[in-house]
Amino acid sequence: MRKIGLKEIEDIALGAALLGAGGGGDPYVGKLVAMGAVKACGDVTLLDPEEVPDDALIVPIAMMGAPTILSEKGIGGEEYKTLHKMVSQFYGKEIYAFMPIEAGGVNSMLPIAACARLGIPMVDADGMGRAFPELQMVTFTIGGIKATPMALTDEKGNCAIFDTITNKWTEELARAVTMSCGGSVSVSLYCMDGATLKKYAVKNIVTRSEQLGAAIRNVKHSGEASPEAAFLKATEGFKLFKGKIADVLRETRDGFNFGKVVLEGIDTDRGKKASVTFQNENLVAEVDGAILATTPDLIAIVDSETFIPVTTDALKYGKRVIVVGLKCFELWRTPEGLELVGPRYFGCDVDYQPIEELMKGGETNV
Amino acid sequence: MRKIGLKEIEDIALGAALLGAGGGGDPYVGKLVAMGAVKACGDVTLLDPEEVPDDALIVPIAMMGAPTILSEKGIGGEEYKTLHKMVSQFYGKEIYAFMPIEAGGVNSMLPIAACARLGIPMVDADGMGRAFPELQMVTFTIGGIKATPMALTDEKGNCAIFDTITNKWTEELARAVTMSCGGSVSVSLYCMDGATLKKYAVKNIVTRSEQLGAAIRNVKHSGEASPEAAFLKATEGFKLFKGKIADVLRETRDGFNFGKVVLEGIDTDRGKKASVTFQNENLVAEVDGAILATTPDLIAIVDSETFIPVTTDALKYGKRVIVVGLKCFELWRTPEGLELVGPRYFGCDVDYQPIEELMKGGETNV
Repeated sequence: MRKIGLKEIEDIALGAALLGAGGGGDPYVGKLVAMGAVKACGDVTLLDPEEVPDDALIVPIAMMGAPTILSEKGIGGEEYKTLHKMVSQFYGKEIYAFMPIEAGGVNSMLPIAACARLGIPMVDADGMGRAFPELQMVTFTIGGIKATPMALTDEKGNCAIFDTITNKWTEELARAVTMSCGGSVSVSLYCMDGATLKKYAVKNIVTRSEQLGAAIRNVKHSGEASPEAAFLKATEGFKLFKGKIADVLRETRDGFNFGKVVLEGIDTDRGKKASVTFQNENLVAEVDGAILATTPDLIAIVDSETFIPVTTDALKYGKRVIVVGLKCFELWRTPEGLELVGPRYFGCDVDYQPIEELMKGGETNV
Repeated sequence: MRKIGLKEIEDIALGAALLGAGGGGDPYVGKLVAMGAVKACGDVTLLDPEEVPDDALIVPIAMMGAPTILSEKGIGGEEYKTLHKMVSQFYGKEIYAFMPIEAGGVNSMLPIAACARLGIPMVDADGMGRAFPELQMVTFTIGGIKATPMALTDEKGNCAIFDTITNKWTEELARAVTMSCGGSVSVSLYCMDGATLKKYAVKNIVTRSEQLGAAIRNVKHSGEASPEAAFLKATEGFKLFKGKIADVLRETRDGFNFGKVVLEGIDTDRGKKASVTFQNENLVAEVDGAILATTPDLIAIVDSETFIPVTTDALKYGKRVIVVGLKCFELWRTPEGLELVGPRYFGCDVDYQPIEELMKGGETNV
């Protein structure tokens, strides 16, 4: 158990941008929401999952819809209180703690705001260890946990609770209401007890995110041979490519952001040409015709000078970047995990191989 | 308190077709659902509103969506049990009785099925005394009662509860989910206590519907001068026109069925030419240029031989019909009532005048 305040939020937000793997929305707006709540209501208690009683009611909090709409509509002060009341009433039991469902992107920040406003602790865990685009893409699905009862509220005060026969129906109905409410809402879903949390959650991911953020912030003062070496060591990242963005192909379809970024090499030891395909998040990284990393391993594109992660939305011609790969959470590497979030689910005609195997033969990290 | 079984359901369904005023959906499918439930689970107890304790939880039941879809998708056996559970859980209180929200059309029948399946009584009351197309068009709105918490379930078992800031938002969000669920769902809304029920509901409307149905069934054995005289006397109806359908103009727009039926006279004492405009339900009846009835008074078109009501969907060239007007529930004639369901709400450029005043000078009933 420890407290997180403004300084920790800065680092968590920066780490969450890396864990977003190109998607999940820029944590910037979420950071402002979390900082506003902490300034108004005080620091948040972060619980280690092992500190949570087995029968405690744990409720993941997130936003649903388009992060770009969130930054226009904003979040009021009442949404989390409303969600807390609805879910407690549904279970006839007080909520013990909130947690993020997604440690990558903007959803890393909103549970901090919720916990500050409600004065309840946040669990140091999530259901992805990164960001993913669809509601069922959580480790809890592997554990057979239902998304519902899912509570939803908008900034105006409209509320709904869903209880559906499958998580696909949850996605369908909640998405329809999200659109009617203007394109972004606050939700809670995959409510679970402490015992289930300990079994299926990605533990200590908030702390990991904070460490990643601090590492990026301190990359120039690390004592390593170079900032790049410091960055790769601190993040345990694999350097896949270093280059200049030569082209960005985008297509918005079915509410998703599909595309491909084409890169030209700078460090020729890492190849002359590379591409990264994405659907919100980066999916496959290819260098000189060889695949070096695929989902569910994380593929992040970071600025080659500042090491600040660049979301797929912000990819621009001429920008100099490093493509870096990170190992995903171990449950994603099981057959059940790969069925949910492996390359074939996203329509990529390639079998998953762990990044550390794909990188064998070349240099690994550094 | 009395029991209603198969015979009563037949008559209530026939009366509900008349109270549908052209809309509300053909009660036929609903009748099959109600009869199936009563055959399986026994007769239903019908309570006079005055028998309901002031603090009892009373829950109106209905279908939302297109009645034509209902007849294709059907209704399973579990929807009402699901609604009962959701609403009881929400209030932390057992439901005392169901009631119809709408005595006209198919929604007259579904609460009977629900009460039979659950073994709870039905209140002899509704919120319209007829059928209307929109969710907020109930006497309870005049009483300031909210539509939410509104529970919704489909035949597959997907559920949602809405709690919204206005009844317009209820309509918006519930309509979106209804469409996602395939176009027809079972709902409960405008939950209230017994005291409120007694103050704002249209009392004994189920019994009135049954009497109307029995009158239509017995019209040829009444001892009156003619079947037509018997029909008008029993229904307290005003004969507006008798004629042959010469034209039917229809337009489906925003999910509503707009149109106009043009009639040529048979009994020239009642005019040579008439028209009835409708939006799901019949709105305005005009005979030889004079308006003889408008919403919220009921305008029904019935077969001139059998006196069986014809829905706007079933209007066909050449059919011989009588246009009949019935007085609406007194609360609809107040300024608040007319704002909700008067002719101007439906875009008709005419002030409401009670049917009995418009008919003055001519013969009234008979």
